[in-house]
Amino acid sequence: MAKLWDKGYRLDKTVEDYTVGNDFLLDAALIPYDVYGSIAHARMLAKIGVLTKKEAARLTKELSGILRLHEKGKFVIKKEDEDVHTAIENHLVGKLGSTGKKIHTARSRNDQVLVDLRLYTKDKLLELMGAVAGLAGVLADFAEKHKDVPLVGRTHTQKAMPSSLGLWAGAYAESLVDDLTILAAAYGLNDQNPLGSAAAYGSALPIDRAYTAKLLGFRKVQGNVLYCANSRGKTEAAVLAACTQVMLDLSRLASDVIFMSIPETAYVSLPDELASGSSLMPQKKNPCALELARGNAAVVFGYLTQAYGITSGLISGYNRDVQLTKEPLMRGLETTKKTVDVITLTVGKLRVNREKCLDAFTPDVFATDEALRLVAQGAAFRDAYRTVSKNLAKLKAEDPVKNIKSKKHAGATGNLGLRRLKEDVSSDRKTLARMKKDFHKRLETLVKGK
Amino acid sequence: MAKLWDKGYRLDKTVEDYTVGNDFLLDAALIPYDVYGSIAHARMLAKIGVLTKKEAARLTKELSGILRLHEKGKFVIKKEDEDVHTAIENHLVGKLGSTGKKIHTARSRNDQVLVDLRLYTKDKLLELMGAVAGLAGVLADFAEKHKDVPLVGRTHTQKAMPSSLGLWAGAYAESLVDDLTILAAAYGLNDQNPLGSAAAYGSALPIDRAYTAKLLGFRKVQGNVLYCANSRGKTEAAVLAACTQVMLDLSRLASDVIFMSIPETAYVSLPDELASGSSLMPQKKNPCALELARGNAAVVFGYLTQAYGITSGLISGYNRDVQLTKEPLMRGLETTKKTVDVITLTVGKLRVNREKCLDAFTPDVFATDEALRLVAQGAAFRDAYRTVSKNLAKLKAEDPVKNIKSKKHAGATGNLGLRRLKEDVSSDRKTLARMKKDFHKRLETLVKGK
Amino acid sequence: MAKLWDKGYRLDKTVEDYTVGNDFLLDAALIPYDVYGSIAHARMLAKIGVLTKKEAARLTKELSGILRLHEKGKFVIKKEDEDVHTAIENHLVGKLGSTGKKIHTARSRNDQVLVDLRLYTKDKLLELMGAVAGLAGVLADFAEKHKDVPLVGRTHTQKAMPSSLGLWAGAYAESLVDDLTILAAAYGLNDQNPLGSAAAYGSALPIDRAYTAKLLGFRKVQGNVLYCANSRGKTEAAVLAACTQVMLDLSRLASDVIFMSIPETAYVSLPDELASGSSLMPQKKNPCALELARGNAAVVFGYLTQAYGITSGLISGYNRDVQLTKEPLMRGLETTKKTVDVITLTVGKLRVNREKCLDAFTPDVFATDEALRLVAQGAAFRDAYRTVSKNLAKLKAEDPVKNIKSKKHAGATGNLGLRRLKEDVSSDRKTLARMKKDFHKRLETLVKGK
Amino acid sequence: MAKLWDKGYRLDKTVEDYTVGNDFLLDAALIPYDVYGSIAHARMLAKIGVLTKKEAARLTKELSGILRLHEKGKFVIKKEDEDVHTAIENHLVGKLGSTGKKIHTARSRNDQVLVDLRLYTKDKLLELMGAVAGLAGVLADFAEKHKDVPLVGRTHTQKAMPSSLGLWAGAYAESLVDDLTILAAAYGLNDQNPLGSAAAYGSALPIDRAYTAKLLGFRKVQGNVLYCANSRGKTEAAVLAACTQVMLDLSRLASDVIFMSIPETAYVSLPDELASGSSLMPQKKNPCALELARGNAAVVFGYLTQAYGITSGLISGYNRDVQLTKEPLMRGLETTKKTVDVITLTVGKLRVNREKCLDAFTPDVFATDEALRLVAQGAAFRDAYRTVSKNLAKLKAEDPVKNIKSKKHAGATGNLGLRRLKEDVSSDRKTLARMKKDFHKRLETLVKGK
Repeated sequence: MAKLWDKGYRLDKTVEDYTVGNDFLLDAALIPYDVYGSIAHARMLAKIGVLTKKEAARLTKELSGILRLHEKGKFVIKKEDEDVHTAIENHLVGKLGSTGKKIHTARSRNDQVLVDLRLYTKDKLLELMGAVAGLAGVLADFAEKHKDVPLVGRTHTQKAMPSSLGLWAGAYAESLVDDLTILAAAYGLNDQNPLGSAAAYGSALPIDRAYTAKLLGFRKVQGNVLYCANSRGKTEAAVLAACTQVMLDLSRLASDVIFMSIPETAYVSLPDELASGSSLMPQKKNPCALELARGNAAVVFGYLTQAYGITSGLISGYNRDVQLTKEPLMRGLETTKKTVDVITLTVGKLRVNREKCLDAFTPDVFATDEALRLVAQGAAFRDAYRTVSKNLAKLKAEDPVKNIKSKKHAGATGNLGLRRLKEDVSSDRKTLARMKKDFHKRLETLVKGK
Repeated sequence: MAKLWDKGYRLDKTVEDYTVGNDFLLDAALIPYDVYGSIAHARMLAKIGVLTKKEAARLTKELSGILRLHEKGKFVIKKEDEDVHTAIENHLVGKLGSTGKKIHTARSRNDQVLVDLRLYTKDKLLELMGAVAGLAGVLADFAEKHKDVPLVGRTHTQKAMPSSLGLWAGAYAESLVDDLTILAAAYGLNDQNPLGSAAAYGSALPIDRAYTAKLLGFRKVQGNVLYCANSRGKTEAAVLAACTQVMLDLSRLASDVIFMSIPETAYVSLPDELASGSSLMPQKKNPCALELARGNAAVVFGYLTQAYGITSGLISGYNRDVQLTKEPLMRGLETTKKTVDVITLTVGKLRVNREKCLDAFTPDVFATDEALRLVAQGAAFRDAYRTVSKNLAKLKAEDPVKNIKSKKHAGATGNLGLRRLKEDVSSDRKTLARMKKDFHKRLETLVKGK
Repeated sequence: MAKLWDKGYRLDKTVEDYTVGNDFLLDAALIPYDVYGSIAHARMLAKIGVLTKKEAARLTKELSGILRLHEKGKFVIKKEDEDVHTAIENHLVGKLGSTGKKIHTARSRNDQVLVDLRLYTKDKLLELMGAVAGLAGVLADFAEKHKDVPLVGRTHTQKAMPSSLGLWAGAYAESLVDDLTILAAAYGLNDQNPLGSAAAYGSALPIDRAYTAKLLGFRKVQGNVLYCANSRGKTEAAVLAACTQVMLDLSRLASDVIFMSIPETAYVSLPDELASGSSLMPQKKNPCALELARGNAAVVFGYLTQAYGITSGLISGYNRDVQLTKEPLMRGLETTKKTVDVITLTVGKLRVNREKCLDAFTPDVFATDEALRLVAQGAAFRDAYRTVSKNLAKLKAEDPVKNIKSKKHAGATGNLGLRRLKEDVSSDRKTLARMKKDFHKRLETLVKGK
Repeated sequence: MAKLWDKGYRLDKTVEDYTVGNDFLLDAALIPYDVYGSIAHARMLAKIGVLTKKEAARLTKELSGILRLHEKGKFVIKKEDEDVHTAIENHLVGKLGSTGKKIHTARSRNDQVLVDLRLYTKDKLLELMGAVAGLAGVLADFAEKHKDVPLVGRTHTQKAMPSSLGLWAGAYAESLVDDLTILAAAYGLNDQNPLGSAAAYGSALPIDRAYTAKLLGFRKVQGNVLYCANSRGKTEAAVLAACTQVMLDLSRLASDVIFMSIPETAYVSLPDELASGSSLMPQKKNPCALELARGNAAVVFGYLTQAYGITSGLISGYNRDVQLTKEPLMRGLETTKKTVDVITLTVGKLRVNREKCLDAFTPDVFATDEALRLVAQGAAFRDAYRTVSKNLAKLKAEDPVKNIKSKKHAGATGNLGLRRLKEDVSSDRKTLARMKKDFHKRLETLVKGK
């Protein structure tokens, strides 16, 4: 089929391949969102009298049909289509003739792909945020269950002071709850309607951007049309930066579990179904998923590097470079979501070896507590520190369980604040579930032509 | 003076130099914050009975004295001090003897530097956010003033459609307002009290973390003590990611002004006092500050890369690696702030050459508008597009001013939404000014021992 | 088919998907190299008596068969195969029974994938280096052809001094010749035989690693077996860093052509077949491939960021994280090669508008030359500079062609050193062509069982 | 003093601060190199008759004087000087009047800073390469000394197969020898004379660039003058990419030593003088320098990110953005060198606990060797693997020393190839020492006016 900008000459094959890139593959994921955006656009054009109601209805019907074809895997974007927008316009023209030729009135592929990506990102962020809240919940449950399992707390990888599995899991639960606030900021940035910005300079027609925003469930119109164009790449960078916050947490959690499951520590172990073997070494059980989670943090950060580097320093208006931010956005969101899922599974199935945790408590782990005991008896801390420091060999092992329970200040092993944490997680999960439901309901209603 | 952990042996000189790094220099900026944190800590220790009220008062007085010495440049951290914490503890011990030795009770340098950096970052973020809001205001004013100056809008660097200087400046104003939401999320992450987490495992003493949070003006206690330790590097990454959003905008704004001030366009020009000369070429007036703003986007992103890379994959608890996130945090915040300032100055002084802007309007810039005119006359858009495409030579120049005024939909050249934008900016500025004032007042009150 | 490490339990589906990742897709590109490595390994096992000659011959034959199946697209790696190594071993076992079960003697998938990637990378680097040398040649030819076409040289994007299209193209030609030395260093790092390092700790059998090195055409054995394992990720980073050098050049070349083809300059233009249109704006001809080349520099750098970040800080020995360096390596090499190709095409077809180049020569471009004229007449340079600076309005236009021809020192417009440059390029091309031929001949010979 | 481009107006203070940046501080390190470049330039100007011999001699003498002032810390670059070039030219004009005003004939600060940085980088790279070769030697010695100390080899952090401390240290020694080839490529790129390229477009005077190349000890003239300008940033990226190769190795070595010195392994320990204490926990001995080495890998990579990001996509010719590549270059070289030094010290002083190394050899570590024993008895490998896999509990501990000695193939524990490795290291060290000596001798000769 013809390119939308067909002018009677053919692009050089090398150039065509290079410019299309992976778009014809990546855009498969955008088909539903391009349909939603196109339906909203058609209805808006009818509202302002550029299309008749009948034309809009025919377009809506045909676009809904594309959705069904896509669900069956029968709407395929070919390389020569260039992208999802062309494939869909060509399909409409093929089916509806002149009416199909009207769909692109007052829009450009520039704002069309913007709206597609915004809807896609919204959908994926809602899933991701739900999964992050879910993992926070799993970690909070783990913390509750194992709050009295002592763990040797480390600094510099060396043994430091008494800790607990509850403290360990609670730390990540709280961290993920905080990540949700960063994700929410990126979500808010993304949740703006760019449709109608066209090529970056709007349109001579009196289009109604508030109406398409409402139809598509955006919280607001993204105003200035040049800003709409300029925000491609910027939004991607914000979303990927929020993903890297999550990956940072998960990479450290993975490192912890890898470390806590070597034979020398063996505080925890992975069940067989979570560990891979070696092709050469018969005895191996490897924490592969955790290592990949750790490595994937760098992968997602690399995607952020791409999105940022592509966009930085470009002059205003659409520049083709930004097409290349599509893949890192999609891959980054996908990798983050999958990593959250695999870690959720792992934490849920982690086996705790309480005895091994207890065995690790050598007397030196209690050195600091001993110094503070001297402080309680009246010594100045720095003197107490030096006294203990000179008498390390005399330190005695204590009961670690008693020790961790005795620390009662906010956030300490004996006062993890899990009730409040669980309430926060539960509240976040409810809010996110509602947002997701509302969003999908909006889109369903739109497809039904209402 | 002695190291806090002195055990009677000397560190190898090479190792000492390597581990101290730049800390003794960078920490100069942390002196006030270390004083604030220490005063709050001392008062809390008195509240729970570990110090007497008199001891706390003496410590507060001596710490306030450090603040005054610092203001006069007379409190210097030496390399052999290792860091600000040691310099201050040693000073207190020197002045107050045994009472000085008590200040480090129930804390570690790990939570001490955390609290210092949180207060520092809060202060700098408030300044930065104020400056960003200020620049948004300057841009909105520029947009208002030049909303009827037509500009050739570009895509792919090629001429595309009618735009305006108002649209151009408004785009950045809106973008910066959005950046404030990302900055605010990072601000919220940072605005939590880590004091009391000690080495990462809290303390055996019944410390009151809510009290220090209140004294220092934090919005909440950062609960789980291990999370406090783990959040070093993470917070830095979130703050630097927010800074990169701002830099992304400014790098593009800088590229635009560089492009719009070459002799071939000359839409705008820099006054002499903003342009540097060449040592070799007598005629040159170079937009150096803008080029550096563009380049500094990559610099700040590099700092984010450092903060992220240092932290990713570390096991839980304090690891010395994270000391290295201090410099990228400080430099990143500083570079972003300076870039905002230099761009604010530039936009404020930018000279507009209306004639040059008008001269650039060749007929092809109106091609899309012509196609939509055919649509208004009943043609299907794709047909109209092809008609115009085949008759480009027949296109006529239009009145660009009339054209840009005629586009009235939301966010278009004739409807920039500047009133609403200015209200948003104004509201943000007020909120930020109040937050800054409250924060500084809190710290002043603290130093006065109230 | 079974996993190589099958132990009678099934991996959890989520974990399996996460650990397999894209390997089953990416590994399609490794099939030939896995075959080559396996043939060499089988022949070595026969040489040391672990396999009979007959067994080795049967394995070689069956492996060659896989190569033919692959060429017809009939050897497919399924997700449940995990990777190319499993798919091939399972195929051999299916065809040859017990003999197939012997192929994995004294090797691990760890060294197997290393050898696959080394051969793959060698092949791709030879192609890439050939293409880079080819582009240097095209640029040198362009420089020769247009050496007398004056161009306004710029600094700070502003007009600076007389330059020429010859100088412009020659600059990139020389730069690419230098890039070849960086690529060659990465090539040398990669060109070492890791086979026999097994899981990272070698083998109890007296394997002959020099023999497999010879069979596979490696310049040397990569000695220390632990270093072999540790070099995964490191080699990838070196190769990608070399690719980024090329991309850095091409991103700038692309920026130049984009700038030189806007209507305001129009020094050059792209023929229709290299420029894309707009879906909305009928008049547009966009330099999309160049914009994507510019953006792809950030993409390739992002791949380097991934390879580096994944590997940095890992403990010695194989860690599963490094599996994730496969995709950035492959994609980075592919993107760089495609970008070289598209730029080669573009430079070859670039149209030069000599008149436009000449028109741009306003008098100020000659200011520096005027100052040096005063120097030649006896003035001190700094005085001459100030004299010209104060009399800019009196500057006169000169003949730019005469000007550029008159500058005769090494590397100046009148002495581009193109003969020497072309000789260098030609010599590089010959060497690279010979290396490529030798490498492929070696592999063909191997497959034929010689 | 006046700016070189003084035109009678003052730069805005904010702009001046922003454009000068850290240059006036960083440039202190460039003073000697600016002197060398200036002497060579003056002598060349005399050779072509632009200066008299006497003028050149006076300039040389005065420039040598700056060198002596600098050595005493008495040549200080002030902020208002902008940079080293201005400070030196102003000094020369102050001392020599009209003769001083001639030094800038036929050069620009653009090529001046290029030549400064090339000489600086050459000096620092020679030091760094010498240090890297030195560390390789220390590691080879360590490997020799401990070649029979068994170590449990790991994959996935889990126990895998018998290894040795010799294999461990040898792996890094070989890796660093390979790094030298990457450093050498970057060295070669840098070792080209850019002087005479002036602002990027050469000079109207018949300057002799080969002569300055010879005087300054460059291996060749960097030809094309525009390429000289364009190579700023590019060279920096190549040098920093080579540094990251070294840092990648050191980050992993550091992780290994951290892991091998926790109480659970305790294979090695750091002497007191290499470990820091804690301010809170009396018992702690922390491997801080190693953690910082690990973190500094990310720091150096961040500098590469800056250099790359700043430069990518710029149009040809000098752009002020590239000034910002100076700091990452300098800091990256410095950090890498310091890290090499601290690791060299650490490896040299590392204490080995042979008993702990032996204790770690549980029977499972020999599983693979057992499987290959079954192969030697006639079993197919995959069958042997499964047999061992099902009978893990029956595995017996072996003598690890005998085991590691028995593995005799190239690169295995019993055949580390240390003699050859040491020869390579020794040869590299000699070559590098000679290069360093020659370079310094060249510069001394130059200063003496010969």
